[in-house]
Amino acid sequence: MILEGVVTTRNVDGTINVAPMGPIFELPIQGFLFRPFQTSTTYQNLKREGCGVFHITDDVLLIAQAALGQLVSVPPTIPATQIAGAVLEDCCRWYEFVVETLDDSQARTEITTRIVHAGQRREFLGFNRAKHAVLEGAILATRLHLLSNSTVRAELDRMAMIVEKTAGRQEQEAFGLIVRYVEDYASETHKFDEV
Amino acid sequence: MILEGVVTTRNVDGTINVAPMGPIFELPIQGFLFRPFQTSTTYQNLKREGCGVFHITDDVLLIAQAALGQLVSVPPTIPATQIAGAVLEDCCRWYEFVVETLDDSQARTEITTRIVHAGQRREFLGFNRAKHAVLEGAILATRLHLLSNSTVRAELDRMAMIVEKTAGRQEQEAFGLIVRYVEDYASETHKFDEV
Repeated sequence: MILEGVVTTRNVDGTINVAPMGPIFELPIQGFLFRPFQTSTTYQNLKREGCGVFHITDDVLLIAQAALGQLVSVPPTIPATQIAGAVLEDCCRWYEFVVETLDDSQARTEITTRIVHAGQRREFLGFNRAKHAVLEGAILATRLHLLSNSTVRAELDRMAMIVEKTAGRQEQEAFGLIVRYVEDYASETHKFDEV
Repeated sequence: MILEGVVTTRNVDGTINVAPMGPIFELPIQGFLFRPFQTSTTYQNLKREGCGVFHITDDVLLIAQAALGQLVSVPPTIPATQIAGAVLEDCCRWYEFVVETLDDSQARTEITTRIVHAGQRREFLGFNRAKHAVLEGAILATRLHLLSNSTVRAELDRMAMIVEKTAGRQEQEAFGLIVRYVEDYASETHKFDEV
């Protein structure tokens, strides 16, 4: 099955890259299979550094910001225990992993990893429909070039109802971010149409 | 905000009722606001007994079964610590609560509660898109009388793609249950149409 979370990896200059990822795994979790695009920073960092940290979090604002390239700065981190990496201070659980195999013969590289350390920071809140609407909204917003404007509108309208009914402040803020991102994209596209 | 979970309450005969509920709460969690329909067993039990247990779980098969009246038997429980109630052995966290106020002047009774004990059994797995598709599917399946067949079909098709891509066995089984439930409903409705 697939879990949606956040991966941190080290950049060439020692700074930290934060990216949403949905790796494949089996229970009990002993490793993850990542399939990043070769254009992604996470791919480049994993290939060079050979390690990273996968985080389980219910912070959908962070996930939405990272997915849409709107993360202004890296959130506070603490050093990883077993690898040269960074653990997000605010997460539910984290898994430090090392790369075992990396097959980049495909457009989406298959990277198998092995967990060398795991820890818990706080509890995952639970099923909140708004959190998932935001997650689906963020995924939708990364696919605008593949979708019609009417499809995107209809999906966002459906999600807005769920957010209105079940969200806290974090989910409202994250959903607002997504709606503005989609509107900006639509107006940019429209500009191009006029040219 | 609203969290989707499972409530256990004691029936008149001392057996346990298991029902999905989405209470309103604020962080840090000190109590829940429940709004059950007065026709529900949970409403009757809470009014009579004055206490219950709210569970956070990522077991979407249990939630789907309970929502659609397909729970063959009550899952294994252990006695609650502070109230006369039952805690689901397999849950992530549980909250034992007592009723503080009960206003049944509306069709959906407002019941405020106060948590008297909480505990943890295991970690909530995290964001899995299939789990949430099942949750939304179960909610959809309880509203078939309000929705058109084509709307329901379109929603299920959308969910099926997410389940196929991201589900484990539990989510596949739960989604299968929902699809069969919807198909049975559609064929029953069709029969009525013919009469």
